[in-house]
Amino acid sequence: MAQSKTILQDTLRVLAEEKRYSTIKDIILFMNPADLAALFDTLDEKTLPVLFRLLPRDLAGEVFPETERDTQETLIRVFSDSELKQILEGLFTDDAADLVEEMPANVASRILSQADNTLRSAINQILKYPEDSAGSVMTTEFVELKENMTVSQALDHIRNVGLDKETVYTCYVTRAGKLLATVAAKDLLVEKDMNRKISEIMDENVISVVTTTDREEVAKLFQKYNLIALPVVDAENRLAGIITFDDVMDVMEKEATEDITIMSGQTPYEKSYSNSSPFELYLHRIPWLLILMVSATFTGLIITSFEQALAAQVVLTAFIPMLMDTGGNSGSQSSVTVIRAISLGEIEFRDLPRVMGKELLTAVFCGLSLGAVCFAKLMLIDRLILGNLAVTIPVAMAVCLTIMITVLVAKTVGCTLPVFAWKLGFDPAVMASPFITTVVDALSLLIYFTIASLILF
Amino acid sequence: MAQSKTILQDTLRVLAEEKRYSTIKDIILFMNPADLAALFDTLDEKTLPVLFRLLPRDLAGEVFPETERDTQETLIRVFSDSELKQILEGLFTDDAADLVEEMPANVASRILSQADNTLRSAINQILKYPEDSAGSVMTTEFVELKENMTVSQALDHIRNVGLDKETVYTCYVTRAGKLLATVAAKDLLVEKDMNRKISEIMDENVISVVTTTDREEVAKLFQKYNLIALPVVDAENRLAGIITFDDVMDVMEKEATEDITIMSGQTPYEKSYSNSSPFELYLHRIPWLLILMVSATFTGLIITSFEQALAAQVVLTAFIPMLMDTGGNSGSQSSVTVIRAISLGEIEFRDLPRVMGKELLTAVFCGLSLGAVCFAKLMLIDRLILGNLAVTIPVAMAVCLTIMITVLVAKTVGCTLPVFAWKLGFDPAVMASPFITTVVDALSLLIYFTIASLILF
Repeated sequence: MAQSKTILQDTLRVLAEEKRYSTIKDIILFMNPADLAALFDTLDEKTLPVLFRLLPRDLAGEVFPETERDTQETLIRVFSDSELKQILEGLFTDDAADLVEEMPANVASRILSQADNTLRSAINQILKYPEDSAGSVMTTEFVELKENMTVSQALDHIRNVGLDKETVYTCYVTRAGKLLATVAAKDLLVEKDMNRKISEIMDENVISVVTTTDREEVAKLFQKYNLIALPVVDAENRLAGIITFDDVMDVMEKEATEDITIMSGQTPYEKSYSNSSPFELYLHRIPWLLILMVSATFTGLIITSFEQALAAQVVLTAFIPMLMDTGGNSGSQSSVTVIRAISLGEIEFRDLPRVMGKELLTAVFCGLSLGAVCFAKLMLIDRLILGNLAVTIPVAMAVCLTIMITVLVAKTVGCTLPVFAWKLGFDPAVMASPFITTVVDALSLLIYFTIASLILF
Repeated sequence: MAQSKTILQDTLRVLAEEKRYSTIKDIILFMNPADLAALFDTLDEKTLPVLFRLLPRDLAGEVFPETERDTQETLIRVFSDSELKQILEGLFTDDAADLVEEMPANVASRILSQADNTLRSAINQILKYPEDSAGSVMTTEFVELKENMTVSQALDHIRNVGLDKETVYTCYVTRAGKLLATVAAKDLLVEKDMNRKISEIMDENVISVVTTTDREEVAKLFQKYNLIALPVVDAENRLAGIITFDDVMDVMEKEATEDITIMSGQTPYEKSYSNSSPFELYLHRIPWLLILMVSATFTGLIITSFEQALAAQVVLTAFIPMLMDTGGNSGSQSSVTVIRAISLGEIEFRDLPRVMGKELLTAVFCGLSLGAVCFAKLMLIDRLILGNLAVTIPVAMAVCLTIMITVLVAKTVGCTLPVFAWKLGFDPAVMASPFITTVVDALSLLIYFTIASLILF
């Protein structure tokens, strides 16, 4: 697929150079808007406008919002005012608002100057909502019905206004602008009595959000209730817009990526990996690397303060990495699992005792297994096979006891820190592997040296 | 919300004990199927069947598939044959197939014995497809149209058969069972000429998958093309079933959770965290903990072979945790980012050189910053403030050089291993933090002792 895209791209560039536009048109009309957009994103600045102008008006309107920011910017810069106006007329308000928000100031103001009054005020309205809120992702193109319409009148109304709406599959019944109920297009389509009133088939048990609801909350509602669209109302329950399932799929993907990024000790990106420059990647990665490096001063201090013990029993040093890693891995298993459960709405703060109980019991099982295997490994591999006679039974006992206690501590820290971070209003994902590892490192060393001192000295 | 659920749950239990069924019915009828399902999941085995039997038939059919496995099992065990038959009639085939698959053998065979012939053969058909394939998640209830129908005939057809279909919003045009085109209900709803032929408004540029396509691929297509439903065909292009967007949202969530779980060094769960017992959690966590613990033997060997150097300069030991962690963190930033980009289809194998170039440049920036800050920290905090005179300029130089080289190595390993794992047919997520950390630990120690030997001895 990627291969065929490259061939297609080369073919089109050559055809464009040879000005064989009718052949290009034949190829283009055979393609999907999403595929065309992906193709246009790969074209150079010279070929792009030439090919884009070959698209029929309708198709151009569908392809444009699917292309990437840079492609859109290039196109807008070469568009005449009338071309820009045409594209804007074809956009839904949420896409138009995204465009204004993402473009450099001079391009954005040109867009606003070419938008008609209705669109301009809708864009400005949407841009006023906080980032990542329902208001900022909603669109204002929805089908409104009245409760005293008949099914046949409703179907006529949809036939007349439906084409320009983002969805016709859920319609909204309003009274004096306030949201009253929803009507599924399916119920209209299967209704056999055309004179039945909308008030008889509408669903008054409406699930809606307010404009300031976080988009993550919105995504959860879609999944829970299997929605196609969700109405967004203002503080007075007036219908402000709707969010459709396709926007929510993007939100779900972005939220999962954001969680994963934060969990690996990076600040979240807005751009995709392919579009981020090394310097941008650096800016997202260096803060946590620096913080974690400097916090490792504590681990260093602990080792320094046990320097004499280590000098006397140098063999102890050899197990430091293994103990730290096993602790870190145990802790991050728990923290990552708990963070994901919080994200999915499975765990609440009051579940903490239950979660801790479960993690502690798991830790006991893991600790016993690891301790037993570790003892066998030390005696068989390190002492017998590798012939390291410094690995005595007391040394092996110290190491295995440390593993068991470290796993208990690591899993407790791993499951509690994310829950507390969340309770305090932080993103629990910050408490994932890198952070937990640093905390558990220090704790595991303290445990190790304390146990070693008791057993060996 | 969680709080109010508990209150509601207690209220209903008390009402059930007092046999005040009409009050319970009033409360229940006010609720959403998804909310009711969540509530039923919290009821004890005694109250559950009593309340479930209060549901009107239609609502019972909607609530049942939304409840959890355990709730379903309890209900099926107390259902009479006719009750079970009724519930089965209300299910879509994909939900019925899930049920048979998830129940213990005796319950599953009772379900199959109560299903009518059509349903039983549809269930058996779906169960034949490989796990996680499009065939295993599809449903067989879709609306079929013919190309020579008029818009008005198509609307009549939908009116007659639509009620029992999983979606009516995309209809499928077939010729001799083979998939020819799709028709969006929107196009039917906004069409002004009722005598227009379906062949004129249908979309022949169909996006479809075959029954064996992986569900992750299916989810990508939904997102790319903003689909409401996707047709599933067999090897001969015969329409076998459809997958709807709500099932895909579940798939997306499950795939993200699976990735996150694997990335934290656990084998993926099928159950949710809340439903997993500590012993089940243990089974998912212990394999990687054991593997990683035993692989740490190498790190131990490296330290042992530099024992004499360490005994001469004990201060070097103090920086081992910091160097290992910084390396591990740098490596997992790269590996996790690359793994996510692979999952989202952003990176392919041929992009490896580009990815490596980007990561190396990022690593140079990170390495220089970390090295400089580390040197300043060692001189200021460790030597001046904490008064550790063993931290000399050569020692600090050895540590900082190690950091810079380790970051370079860690980011290279971190970005290449997932891509190679993927190329070899493994899940790239396996190459996330825990694995990378173990590899980078060994490498960073080797780099550290080599540099320290060169500078200090």
